[in-house]
Amino acid sequence: MSETALSINTLTGRLVDAMIADAAKLRVIVTKGARGETIIDAGKSARGGIEAGLRLAEICLGGLGTVTLSPTNENPNWPFEISVRSTDPVIACLASQYAGWALSHGEGKGSFFALGSGPGRALARKEPLFQDLSYRDAATRATLVLESDRPPPPEVTDKVAAACGVSPENLAFIFAPTQSLAGSVQVVARVLEVALHKAHELHFPLDRIVDGLACAPLSPPHPDFVEAMGRTNDAIIYGGQIQLFVTGPADDAKALAEQLPSKNSRDHGRPFAEIFKANKGDFYAIDPMLFSPAEAIVTSVDSGRTFRAGKIENALLDACFS
Amino acid sequence: MSETALSINTLTGRLVDAMIADAAKLRVIVTKGARGETIIDAGKSARGGIEAGLRLAEICLGGLGTVTLSPTNENPNWPFEISVRSTDPVIACLASQYAGWALSHGEGKGSFFALGSGPGRALARKEPLFQDLSYRDAATRATLVLESDRPPPPEVTDKVAAACGVSPENLAFIFAPTQSLAGSVQVVARVLEVALHKAHELHFPLDRIVDGLACAPLSPPHPDFVEAMGRTNDAIIYGGQIQLFVTGPADDAKALAEQLPSKNSRDHGRPFAEIFKANKGDFYAIDPMLFSPAEAIVTSVDSGRTFRAGKIENALLDACFS
Amino acid sequence: MSETALSINTLTGRLVDAMIADAAKLRVIVTKGARGETIIDAGKSARGGIEAGLRLAEICLGGLGTVTLSPTNENPNWPFEISVRSTDPVIACLASQYAGWALSHGEGKGSFFALGSGPGRALARKEPLFQDLSYRDAATRATLVLESDRPPPPEVTDKVAAACGVSPENLAFIFAPTQSLAGSVQVVARVLEVALHKAHELHFPLDRIVDGLACAPLSPPHPDFVEAMGRTNDAIIYGGQIQLFVTGPADDAKALAEQLPSKNSRDHGRPFAEIFKANKGDFYAIDPMLFSPAEAIVTSVDSGRTFRAGKIENALLDACFS
Repeated sequence: MSETALSINTLTGRLVDAMIADAAKLRVIVTKGARGETIIDAGKSARGGIEAGLRLAEICLGGLGTVTLSPTNENPNWPFEISVRSTDPVIACLASQYAGWALSHGEGKGSFFALGSGPGRALARKEPLFQDLSYRDAATRATLVLESDRPPPPEVTDKVAAACGVSPENLAFIFAPTQSLAGSVQVVARVLEVALHKAHELHFPLDRIVDGLACAPLSPPHPDFVEAMGRTNDAIIYGGQIQLFVTGPADDAKALAEQLPSKNSRDHGRPFAEIFKANKGDFYAIDPMLFSPAEAIVTSVDSGRTFRAGKIENALLDACFS
Repeated sequence: MSETALSINTLTGRLVDAMIADAAKLRVIVTKGARGETIIDAGKSARGGIEAGLRLAEICLGGLGTVTLSPTNENPNWPFEISVRSTDPVIACLASQYAGWALSHGEGKGSFFALGSGPGRALARKEPLFQDLSYRDAATRATLVLESDRPPPPEVTDKVAAACGVSPENLAFIFAPTQSLAGSVQVVARVLEVALHKAHELHFPLDRIVDGLACAPLSPPHPDFVEAMGRTNDAIIYGGQIQLFVTGPADDAKALAEQLPSKNSRDHGRPFAEIFKANKGDFYAIDPMLFSPAEAIVTSVDSGRTFRAGKIENALLDACFS
Repeated sequence: MSETALSINTLTGRLVDAMIADAAKLRVIVTKGARGETIIDAGKSARGGIEAGLRLAEICLGGLGTVTLSPTNENPNWPFEISVRSTDPVIACLASQYAGWALSHGEGKGSFFALGSGPGRALARKEPLFQDLSYRDAATRATLVLESDRPPPPEVTDKVAAACGVSPENLAFIFAPTQSLAGSVQVVARVLEVALHKAHELHFPLDRIVDGLACAPLSPPHPDFVEAMGRTNDAIIYGGQIQLFVTGPADDAKALAEQLPSKNSRDHGRPFAEIFKANKGDFYAIDPMLFSPAEAIVTSVDSGRTFRAGKIENALLDACFS
């Protein structure tokens, strides 16, 4: 026996099968699309809910993460927190959960655009980020999660199936709008992923990140897309805590801890929806350093030292969520 | 594929089967009754315990809820809290968990009386409450939980089997006294249910309650029935927190949040056992508005606004639990 | 039907099988040893991690315990806590988890020494402690966990197989160094066990302990063995909380609560690594009363009274972990 190959699409496939088996209980709607692909609506026509969102979050993590909800009194007004931990945060968060695959079809009214996340990304490997990730999957089924209010059109299904190297019948799309409960949970559960992504932006060697823990308050949903998206980001930016375990020199761990928290961003201090509008809805105009947890703890396992920076901003969080 | 029918007795049947398979580990005793019904003792002759109580609580919720135990420092003296969340709080709490089915047989000494809860209620639909619940189950097996120190007599089994439309062989009763550890856990886990029940009493439309979260401290058991029952209620009334997610006008959500907490009751402020004794043991003389969590948070998903009222009473809780 | 026999090696066998099935995800390495025994490396050549440690901890508890990780703000600097609860703390902690089986082979350089824990101990029953434990297992497979940086030599395998009465092919060893993430988690998860062990040392009748809950902060690992071991002990001694549920007279519960906390030890107040070095690395010279949680809560179920003593020492914990 030896360490067998890790297939995140195979691991995730079991979670998707379980979601389908529990569809009635989770209040998700399962259908087949035009190409025979599986479509799961977790929050548009389906009522979905918090439990569906927790399942969706573990699917986003490629089956390599655990997402739970528990009461804390970190912020007395928002007692329920989403916790995320991963057995392999680099693969789980960057090769799977990061919403890095832009999927679009058509133009103008009726056009489709959604950011795809989930383990299907590691089969397609279309994004530049994969140049820095050695992980490859070889599964014959694929799963993609869409932060969207509708399923992809057939043309997008064809494109994704081809890019993943699977037949459409072996492809599953799960979608939920950001405004839905499932969508809120799924985005707040990105609290660990944003830390991994920012560590990569800061050029911290990814192979040195060996474990990760995180939590953030469950943000209340909002019917307006920008406000809903804003609150899920606020939960992370002003209420998120992460702890990374890294190898290598202690000084590097110290620098990472100091640079990671959102307070280092010039945009820190206002509700995300307000920042988004001030930038005229242009994501790329927003300081990328903003997308990170409020507090970062980095433990250097080779030295035994731990470094921390940033802090939870309860007053700001209350303002954002109200 | 489509949203399949939800059968809470079928979902719960799997949890009952798992409890039977884990009987030795959970220290519950499984026997067959006079009519061939399954009887599980979770706290009288059996030692049972906290784990059995957590399982029992999920059975009460009809397989639609998750019940966990985790440390918080909400109340430093009672660090372990029971958390409850449900994918469908109306069905889970009102059609299943609410202890609304009064089961009795005989009179005087040797008579039997117990309040039945669990998914079997949704097959029988004997209570007026079901006039306001559209949910129906059509399962061929049924489960009922009894807050009792003994199993039901054969006459009660016959009555329940007939009302549920199942043969006694397909009927399971699980019982635990309130004084037992399993009983304590099972009652404290009603922290979400009391909020649902009070919302119904306040005439809040049930179909507008789309999700729910709750927690309350694990109350220490007591050998005296009234004291034991008192403490489990105190855990909820003075230490319970809930968050409901509702549709509809924000003003309705605000009114619900303001009315839900136990502090609105004229009986608030004393240990429940004391109130019970002051009312000469007559439950119906106690203000029904008392049965509710200490703190209520109501999020209006259609407006994005959140309202809160009430607060945890740690000093009172310490007095009740000591 | 009746209460069936409880086999902790059979229960644990399922957890070991699951660990093997999830080897890639948990980053553990599974091999066969010279005698055909199963060897799982969870932290030496294998990277392992926190998730592997949580699994390892449940294996140590003989399948009778639940080990989780959740955020609390008990200590703001170390927000993630390990929680342990057991359906049967005496069997789980003393007959299984306690690291009481000293396994050695050879002398001087190249000699092997490790403390064995896990359910295999209850088959072998080699330790004097088993004179006070009525529990016996009769399984045909056995599992032992070693706090070690290497697998046992064949001679130790032979000795363990013979003592457990199983063939080496049915024996599994899981090892992880104290310095590893999995090792840290596995030791901190002993927070309930040290309370059980100290209760036994204090001559509290074990059959009166009917349930148990505990938590302690996840200690940061350290590359040096003594520092690593020190921190895992500090997590328990200065940051651990336990609640025991006991039968018998309230006065006995009160005395137990008062005697249990680590503050009763003459060695309390300094990092454990410092104490260890001051005693020239002689474990037996350290006050055995030190090995206990910071805070103890004892609930007397026969009287309904609860007693508490000790407290969490956050400043000391910060000093130990930095």
